[in-house]
Amino acid sequence: MPDTNHETPQNIRLRDDGAAVIILDQTLLPGETKYLELTNAGEMFDALKKLRVRGAPAIGIFAGFALFVLAYRTKAEDYSGFLTKVSEHSAFLNSARPTAVNLSKQLRRMEMLVKGLADKPRPLILDAMRKEAEMILREDIDMCRAISEYGLSLIREGFGILTHCNAGPLATSRYGTGLGPILLGRERGMYLRVYSCETRPLLQGARLTAYELSRAGVDCTLICDNMASIVMKEGKIDAVFVGCDRVARNGDTANKIGTSGAAILAKHYGIPFYVFCPSSTIDTESETGADIEIELRPPEEIKELFFKKPAAPADVKCYNPAFDITDSSLITAIITEKGICRAPYQESLTQAAASSALINLQTSD
Amino acid sequence: MPDTNHETPQNIRLRDDGAAVIILDQTLLPGETKYLELTNAGEMFDALKKLRVRGAPAIGIFAGFALFVLAYRTKAEDYSGFLTKVSEHSAFLNSARPTAVNLSKQLRRMEMLVKGLADKPRPLILDAMRKEAEMILREDIDMCRAISEYGLSLIREGFGILTHCNAGPLATSRYGTGLGPILLGRERGMYLRVYSCETRPLLQGARLTAYELSRAGVDCTLICDNMASIVMKEGKIDAVFVGCDRVARNGDTANKIGTSGAAILAKHYGIPFYVFCPSSTIDTESETGADIEIELRPPEEIKELFFKKPAAPADVKCYNPAFDITDSSLITAIITEKGICRAPYQESLTQAAASSALINLQTSD
Repeated sequence: MPDTNHETPQNIRLRDDGAAVIILDQTLLPGETKYLELTNAGEMFDALKKLRVRGAPAIGIFAGFALFVLAYRTKAEDYSGFLTKVSEHSAFLNSARPTAVNLSKQLRRMEMLVKGLADKPRPLILDAMRKEAEMILREDIDMCRAISEYGLSLIREGFGILTHCNAGPLATSRYGTGLGPILLGRERGMYLRVYSCETRPLLQGARLTAYELSRAGVDCTLICDNMASIVMKEGKIDAVFVGCDRVARNGDTANKIGTSGAAILAKHYGIPFYVFCPSSTIDTESETGADIEIELRPPEEIKELFFKKPAAPADVKCYNPAFDITDSSLITAIITEKGICRAPYQESLTQAAASSALINLQTSD
Repeated sequence: MPDTNHETPQNIRLRDDGAAVIILDQTLLPGETKYLELTNAGEMFDALKKLRVRGAPAIGIFAGFALFVLAYRTKAEDYSGFLTKVSEHSAFLNSARPTAVNLSKQLRRMEMLVKGLADKPRPLILDAMRKEAEMILREDIDMCRAISEYGLSLIREGFGILTHCNAGPLATSRYGTGLGPILLGRERGMYLRVYSCETRPLLQGARLTAYELSRAGVDCTLICDNMASIVMKEGKIDAVFVGCDRVARNGDTANKIGTSGAAILAKHYGIPFYVFCPSSTIDTESETGADIEIELRPPEEIKELFFKKPAAPADVKCYNPAFDITDSSLITAIITEKGICRAPYQESLTQAAASSALINLQTSD
């Protein structure tokens, strides 16, 4: 029974005994709400690869709990063997998704923690790991809340917002990034109209964003991706809100395939295009978008999955990148929990990534 | 068994006895090749509405044969009663699709023919109607051939071409409009790489274009609509080729939803964007795109059709326009069988629409 509470069923959590990560299988939504208990590295890799758990921040949260569970279950006797196991699991999980920086970042964070506790008793190390994983989750909740507040300062009652893919609670912890301001606004009684691009091939916009917004009682209209141009032209859209998977130093942003197209359209129609992300998504090691690896996914996702009759000739070639790079020149602002970053991004993003407190990066207009 | 012949199974023809239109049901392709015999106005309306027959020029061809069959079967005794029936059928069929101008144009042409033969013997009128319908088909074949030749002058060996929806033989008679140069080029041994946008929601690009190009042995890659930006950015695309449903006097062009988006992307990346259409598609009564009615189609096409599990919440709103308007400023040239029209379109299109012979509107560069 759908309710109008913005809080989505908790998508990632640790089983009480600490021996399994429990996730909501996002590939079955909105038809089915099914939880999976993952206890080994193969299942965890699979959950990442098949997008059962997805969304850059959610992947980071998952990384923490997953590595803890694998550490908890490891049978190695001494510290050195234990560390080797942790590192192996970390490398294996990291190989599931190359584009989002959160996965590698949080895996490395967990691994570093273990390295800092060399030769300490196993229970102490495990306790620290569990606390660290829980901290990643808590940080995400705080981050989403802050992003949502900043985002809310950019919009007004009655705004039409176009969004692509899913950057809501399912992709994070609470509120979300791209959907955060919308859900927070709704909570405060604000009326907004959201146009959700279905986001082919895996339909996260149709299956997840429309699901989350409908549950929260937000006025949401589903469109095919190729309808973004017409709704903009018709004056229905006042702003574009998207999440992202990795931001290079110059502001080039990797997000779900189709995001760069939406940005070009927004620029053409004079509509502001906003990217929402935790500052952990800023990858200072990537100078520009050219340094970001784009994940290529199987042709079957375009040709077969979700279709009940042949949607294309069986032998046709498919080109199926999972993300693309949105040039920074197309982005009006990048909103982090540390503030609203505007061009020149080289400065504002470096500042956001480096600072530990809220700072006045650039005031919103 | 697929062959490499570019000729697709004949999509529209008259049954030998003249009492039925036989069409290839395009909604079942590529999985099933099924022909339907249509004998009454309800079935014909349905075939148009449900896109069993589709593509602006094909709809015009269908209009001629359909109106002939309905006239052939009419039981009215005198000329006046007969004319009333023909006019009623014409108005009814015309109401099935509001955007493409070919439907109303060819229906009006058939009706005018009947009006010009007032009180002539029924067999003479029917014979003239049948000949007129066959002439519409022959004209289309000649038109496609000419368009294809002009289009071929714009491209070179090895070009990458992005196309949206389906403007091939299935949408016309032979060769097609947007796909015409590609199929003609292939026939002459030219190597081209085509990226076919799947064209949500009804997947004409996946189901029909990929089918036609694969059969013809053209190197074809299917992409989701939202992947157009990345393939352009990666330098894979040298030109965009699309058909169209109606062109206003100033060059604003109505074509399958998503076309304007592809045009904006092409402009952004500096890629030429070509529209292919018969001159009959130029609607001199529409001053700009604002005068063109956009067909809105049922939400189920986005939410349910072609999907084997729920693709979105059952109660989500959908906005489902079937076409959009591509601003003329985004179009590099409009190629008709009368030549290549460039801006200022007011001049070149009026000339193309009015002249009866091939003329040198503007030389291609």
